[in-house]
Amino acid sequence: MKNFTSVHDVPQIDALVKKALAYKADRFKDKTLGAGKRIGLLFLNPSMRTRLSTQIAAQNLGMEPIVFNVGQEGWALEFEDEAIMSGSTVEHVKDAAPIMGNYFDILAIRTFPSLKNREDDYSELYIKQFIKYAGIPVVSLESATLHPLQSLTDIITITECLNNTTPPGRGEAGGKRPKIVLTWAPHVKPLPQCVANSFSQWVNAWGKADFVITHPEDYELDEQFTKGATITHNQDEALKDADFVYVKNWSTFKDYGKIYNNDPEWMLTNKKLATTNNAKVMHCLPVRRNVELSDEILDGPNSIVTQEASNRVWAAQAVLSEILASQK
Amino acid sequence: MKNFTSVHDVPQIDALVKKALAYKADRFKDKTLGAGKRIGLLFLNPSMRTRLSTQIAAQNLGMEPIVFNVGQEGWALEFEDEAIMSGSTVEHVKDAAPIMGNYFDILAIRTFPSLKNREDDYSELYIKQFIKYAGIPVVSLESATLHPLQSLTDIITITECLNNTTPPGRGEAGGKRPKIVLTWAPHVKPLPQCVANSFSQWVNAWGKADFVITHPEDYELDEQFTKGATITHNQDEALKDADFVYVKNWSTFKDYGKIYNNDPEWMLTNKKLATTNNAKVMHCLPVRRNVELSDEILDGPNSIVTQEASNRVWAAQAVLSEILASQK
Amino acid sequence: MKNFTSVHDVPQIDALVKKALAYKADRFKDKTLGAGKRIGLLFLNPSMRTRLSTQIAAQNLGMEPIVFNVGQEGWALEFEDEAIMSGSTVEHVKDAAPIMGNYFDILAIRTFPSLKNREDDYSELYIKQFIKYAGIPVVSLESATLHPLQSLTDIITITECLNNTTPPGRGEAGGKRPKIVLTWAPHVKPLPQCVANSFSQWVNAWGKADFVITHPEDYELDEQFTKGATITHNQDEALKDADFVYVKNWSTFKDYGKIYNNDPEWMLTNKKLATTNNAKVMHCLPVRRNVELSDEILDGPNSIVTQEASNRVWAAQAVLSEILASQK
Repeated sequence: MKNFTSVHDVPQIDALVKKALAYKADRFKDKTLGAGKRIGLLFLNPSMRTRLSTQIAAQNLGMEPIVFNVGQEGWALEFEDEAIMSGSTVEHVKDAAPIMGNYFDILAIRTFPSLKNREDDYSELYIKQFIKYAGIPVVSLESATLHPLQSLTDIITITECLNNTTPPGRGEAGGKRPKIVLTWAPHVKPLPQCVANSFSQWVNAWGKADFVITHPEDYELDEQFTKGATITHNQDEALKDADFVYVKNWSTFKDYGKIYNNDPEWMLTNKKLATTNNAKVMHCLPVRRNVELSDEILDGPNSIVTQEASNRVWAAQAVLSEILASQK
Repeated sequence: MKNFTSVHDVPQIDALVKKALAYKADRFKDKTLGAGKRIGLLFLNPSMRTRLSTQIAAQNLGMEPIVFNVGQEGWALEFEDEAIMSGSTVEHVKDAAPIMGNYFDILAIRTFPSLKNREDDYSELYIKQFIKYAGIPVVSLESATLHPLQSLTDIITITECLNNTTPPGRGEAGGKRPKIVLTWAPHVKPLPQCVANSFSQWVNAWGKADFVITHPEDYELDEQFTKGATITHNQDEALKDADFVYVKNWSTFKDYGKIYNNDPEWMLTNKKLATTNNAKVMHCLPVRRNVELSDEILDGPNSIVTQEASNRVWAAQAVLSEILASQK
Repeated sequence: MKNFTSVHDVPQIDALVKKALAYKADRFKDKTLGAGKRIGLLFLNPSMRTRLSTQIAAQNLGMEPIVFNVGQEGWALEFEDEAIMSGSTVEHVKDAAPIMGNYFDILAIRTFPSLKNREDDYSELYIKQFIKYAGIPVVSLESATLHPLQSLTDIITITECLNNTTPPGRGEAGGKRPKIVLTWAPHVKPLPQCVANSFSQWVNAWGKADFVITHPEDYELDEQFTKGATITHNQDEALKDADFVYVKNWSTFKDYGKIYNNDPEWMLTNKKLATTNNAKVMHCLPVRRNVELSDEILDGPNSIVTQEASNRVWAAQAVLSEILASQK
């Protein structure tokens, strides 16, 4: 694995999941794999879980992580080719990235969408420019349209749950495919589509589940990620008999970056959960309590959000491990 | 020792002081005690000495410290139970803390008082919520009402001075109890009562000194911390024959968070020092020169503020060492 | 070497350059030299290359670097003696620096000029106060008037180019002195004179080149740094037959901190480069593309800006190594 920016960079999802779970069982099993190597963690916007988990993952492999909050600590970067830089940007990615490539062995980057111009955001210019000019492996810590470390974590967490079911439940051992539902939830702000896009892309590529996406009208996601899933505006129908319910808000894709319907009825409650197959409830966090998800769900026995967030470390460690191995 | 949030967490103050002074004599004596362990240092407000000294202390014990400036680098946290999070907070401590508990082995937190609502501040909701939900040892890097690492440092520094007096001065060796005076000082801003509360609590618990607190009318501190000390509005009387003078500003406790009298006459000067027993002058820093404390004192032979600030490392190292030992 | 704040701290430039190039050949050759030692990196203003390269250099030597963004993470510092601190500054360097001296083995500081008061800036009060009160070696990460780590890097990079010329070109091996030109370039903001001052000071002290400085009228630099160089307002004449062209903007020195002429004609282009001796083009970065330097130069074969920025690591490593060696 050279870069890690989407599921397309992963030769075999289950092998990567297995690797992550091996690190969860023994975090220091490869503690010298990254000795003498450095990873730069560049944040163009804030992050907590992603920052901490990736830093910890790198340290578990013996690498030296260096965190750099671009903008706060450094410079506003320019990404457009041929820009006449007489405005607010002070350094071009064409100049900054090659230096990062000399300073580090792996570069991890957190970028963000404007939510103003869909074509710009979906071109993934920022991360593509870093890949083009850095000359070293690049790991996405969330980009304008995708969040692959989160999605890998989600598949790891789902796999763990399926493995732990006794008698063997759905999934490989149980013979029956689990039903995974991604449901839109209300929020107070227009959010990126990254997590929803990425989760859809990974569940589809994984191919081991019946996958249903439910959201109000006008919240259709980009088909390049959702194709293969059943899509419905009827949340009740979607939730029925679900084994996993992934809750997430996103803003509109077509009329880009808007909040249309923000119906509080879409918030998941215990009452709604009653129609599922005692589903595990997932969320990437941070979550707005009692707006996106009710206290009763988050504090109840079906929530696996803490397990999910904790697995971020093992997802990052598996990815860095693969990249280090391919550099040998 | 499981948590460290006040003197009540310390089984035996002198034993902890002794441990700290042993680290001062040989900082790397336990350099593998924390190997493979991580401490998260969460700052909800800025810090210099506390941040650096705790980070260094952790490294001296072989731990990996990870600093995270919440808010600046991450998220605004919600602490109220059952909050409907449609406002400015983006993550609840109930969700954030357990993840910290999975990422780290020890969690150290710097919180702050609002200085607006006394009941809220004195409930210590922030640090209590972290303790409740993190599931790992929590160290206070200053909370809404207390600053125990500072106070431990202060007792360490006083002990050092008493040990170094020849012929043996006051204190254990000398047979006579030292006189310690905490005096209020002017300032330009309303400050928390943390350092004054905590110093009072520790000196009282230590029990090896005659303890006098002096301040203008209306600056009475919370009795739960000061009980046992002699309290007077007459600074001259208080300073007489003092062995240690601890200088600190604080805002009012009763009519909460206000500045009443801000009389510059309360600033300590060499003239005032003349009536003491050649007292050592202490301050937790940062200090507003020529407002809280005069240049002549800070640059003179009686100031031990640098020694005091430097001892912060050994205080933190002793505390982390105790917590690590209890985790074995 | 005790401190590193200008070329005057360096006993022998070529020996330091040689040391840096040895680290470039084998970065971990002295990987335990700094074991058990700590360097504090204090930033009073933002930095990317300097921050990352110094942090990496310290780690290569086995030191623990601790980055602290003063102001952002900590306190506004006061530098004036006898200040009555009732304003916005919360801690005096007289109190902060000695504590840094206790916490760290080496202190590296990034300060900045106001560009408002020339006497103040050129007094280098900030860095001098740190040296006076810290009691440990101080390394400039750029000060109000100089940027010695950048200049050392520049001499390293020039030396590398001269060594790599076959048949041996100008410089020591070739027998002919290279021609180095420092040319002013347009910019959108008034910038410090640091890099230009420092480059001039180092090239003059190195003494192995014909050194020409060119800039529009009114942009004369301080003679204490430029003395020995040929100075001309005719850029075309200056560039003729040049082996190295160092491009940099600076604001006026005499009528301090102003932009007078900002003629875009001063931007270096391929056409201008044609009259040189196939000159290597240098810039300290960050660079405003198509304002200070054209895309065609930066993306062309003559630019060595990436090599130059990458050499920052080895410059810092050589300096820290010298200081560590002198502490033994």
